[in-house]
Amino acid sequence: MSAEGENVIFIGKKSVMNYVLAVLLQFDVGNKVVVLKARGKAISKAVDVAQIVKRRLLGGKVEVTSCKIDTEEVGEPPRKVSTIEIVLEQTA
Amino acid sequence: MSAEGENVIFIGKKSVMNYVLAVLLQFDVGNKVVVLKARGKAISKAVDVAQIVKRRLLGGKVEVTSCKIDTEEVGEPPRKVSTIEIVLEQTA
Repeated sequence: MSAEGENVIFIGKKSVMNYVLAVLLQFDVGNKVVVLKARGKAISKAVDVAQIVKRRLLGGKVEVTSCKIDTEEVGEPPRKVSTIEIVLEQTA
Repeated sequence: MSAEGENVIFIGKKSVMNYVLAVLLQFDVGNKVVVLKARGKAISKAVDVAQIVKRRLLGGKVEVTSCKIDTEEVGEPPRKVSTIEIVLEQTA
């Protein structure tokens, strides 16, 4: 799990730009670290969000400092689903 | 890019189990490192492949040692696409 004081955004069914905005807002209020979490098909979207923030919007000021993949059990009966956790950190 | 001697599997439109088999074959012929690469929507599938190999089939014998995300330009006109590179390494 994430350390204290970090801000976690769960990537779901909204549009990519929706989550990009959420990340920017987190940095805007002074957070140095934003964590993106996603499961299943939303994993690709989480990577898109991270890359758009990094390349287009906060180029040079934000880096991906960690990218972890894992498996979770969800639903009934339980079903294994892949997860990703991407850590974005402000560097300047 | 990946170091020499590593084996790269590009995750595309085939089924997850197809790629899982490809990874197992690479380990079976003696490779210690297998690299999964994927773009766009196939990113989730690459994570699934890595997790299935790690958890279900070679549990305890294979670890995800690196997970990098990046952006590539593809097509005409060029369009930015997110990419992922997952490194699986045999530990025992």
